[in-house]
Amino acid sequence: MADNYVARGKEYFLDLQERLCGALERLDGGGRFATDEWESPSGGGCSRVLAGGKVLEKAGVNFSHVSGDHLPASATAAHPQLAECRFEALGVSLVVHPHNPYVPTSHANVRMFVAEQAGQELHWWFGGGYDLTPCYGFTEDCRHWHRTAAAACTPFGETLYPRFKQWCDDYFYLPHRGEPRGVGGLFFDDLKVWGFDTTLGFVKSVGDSFMPAYLPIAERRMGMDYGERERQFQLYRRGRYAEFNLVHDRGTLFGLQSGGRIESILMSLPPLVRWEYDYRPEPGSAEARLTEYFLQARDWLGEEG
Amino acid sequence: MADNYVARGKEYFLDLQERLCGALERLDGGGRFATDEWESPSGGGCSRVLAGGKVLEKAGVNFSHVSGDHLPASATAAHPQLAECRFEALGVSLVVHPHNPYVPTSHANVRMFVAEQAGQELHWWFGGGYDLTPCYGFTEDCRHWHRTAAAACTPFGETLYPRFKQWCDDYFYLPHRGEPRGVGGLFFDDLKVWGFDTTLGFVKSVGDSFMPAYLPIAERRMGMDYGERERQFQLYRRGRYAEFNLVHDRGTLFGLQSGGRIESILMSLPPLVRWEYDYRPEPGSAEARLTEYFLQARDWLGEEG
Repeated sequence: MADNYVARGKEYFLDLQERLCGALERLDGGGRFATDEWESPSGGGCSRVLAGGKVLEKAGVNFSHVSGDHLPASATAAHPQLAECRFEALGVSLVVHPHNPYVPTSHANVRMFVAEQAGQELHWWFGGGYDLTPCYGFTEDCRHWHRTAAAACTPFGETLYPRFKQWCDDYFYLPHRGEPRGVGGLFFDDLKVWGFDTTLGFVKSVGDSFMPAYLPIAERRMGMDYGERERQFQLYRRGRYAEFNLVHDRGTLFGLQSGGRIESILMSLPPLVRWEYDYRPEPGSAEARLTEYFLQARDWLGEEG
Repeated sequence: MADNYVARGKEYFLDLQERLCGALERLDGGGRFATDEWESPSGGGCSRVLAGGKVLEKAGVNFSHVSGDHLPASATAAHPQLAECRFEALGVSLVVHPHNPYVPTSHANVRMFVAEQAGQELHWWFGGGYDLTPCYGFTEDCRHWHRTAAAACTPFGETLYPRFKQWCDDYFYLPHRGEPRGVGGLFFDDLKVWGFDTTLGFVKSVGDSFMPAYLPIAERRMGMDYGERERQFQLYRRGRYAEFNLVHDRGTLFGLQSGGRIESILMSLPPLVRWEYDYRPEPGSAEARLTEYFLQARDWLGEEG
């Protein structure tokens, strides 16, 4: 049964990876993904990276499938009884770092865990979601993003979007900055509320909705003029992204703890990043508005959104 | 007694900060340090930053003095019985990120802790050291660096330099990369092997030897020609520096846990950093030699150094 579940997850994840890469290549209109198949003692994967494209400064779409005799601590917060279990973990992660500062950075991930305990029933669960990290905020983009996310969830229940939206706001938060990483989206983990088929169906609905959520925003912003000021602000904001991924991200930590391939795990880091001591945006500027308005937990589907 | 010890530590640290800034301004020959006095609920400090100098892309020399009711976990590994103690921590941290890729990045820190437990004797200890992170290695630089470090230790005992050199190699190590951060130097913590006067004397010897260790190297390399290739490699290597500071550094973690000022703590991050997926230096190049030869634990005072 574990093998059957894993095979069905894997089939979807590999197909999704292919479709995500195709859609990003069409968006870029020039760059092509390179493919690295890799193996490690704990498993293997396929890393696909597009670097130096026309629209995308760097994009990565990774599939990985690892296993081990002991589920790492980063994956067992909700499953302490499984800490000593043999496990398999597989999934797809995407990150997009565009050139144009008006095109938001974005991240998506769908993943599946299977843990086996001798003499007990099979444990499986899913995780995933996607989130948007603009340098310059646009209300219509945030609304479109969250509407698409909500629409992917709603067929499976009315409560899912609000819960997973909140979880995303809670998760992608930099406590040392007192600041969210971006404008949120969806985040879920330890998901096993229905049977396997329906749960996988939900994960597919989320995974398949990423491109309809992201592409219209990228297409709307990629032609906008920008100069050195916007570029410098983008490089500065990417510092927050690097801080989150290296200090807080459980996915990065899981990769490091489970013997993943380091270049694939850290592929999420931005291509170029700037840190400036005690930078403060000009009051009233678009740069100030990012943190003052857009990087605040907000109901993007309600009146105020 | 605690107050007297703290006052004597503080006097040295503030004087050292002043001298370090003066020496770096003379080295730069143009840039000036800006000064930020700050206070937080847990204490205060003085951050001094030189940005965009002629030689130094960014340099920071921070003094901080914080206190709290509970010594953070990052400071109590060697003192579990003090976890619930009221404490004071003070010290000076320095980081130098030069423009020229041939001039190594460097870091130094000297710090002092005092912890008080009702009805028990006063606990105090010191920590500190300095380390060098070149992008391009030069044997004569490494030898000079380590000779100066050894000379600062030897008056206090023959075993100190080898122990603290080893500790530095062990501490400034990126396990996820299987790579040291640089060519080492000195690192010590929980130091209380003599009385207070001698221990402070040792810390002064280390702190005062930083500039004699660093300046001749910087002066020798700052006029070397470089181009885009060396600059790009420097930005790439700075990625390792950011990874270490954000993922592994106990000093950064202590700052975040003890309510330090975030801009002062993260001042150590490089001004501009590049991440490139799966970069590999050309075999036989100076870039390959960095990791193959220089970033290997090595006895820089012995025959092979």
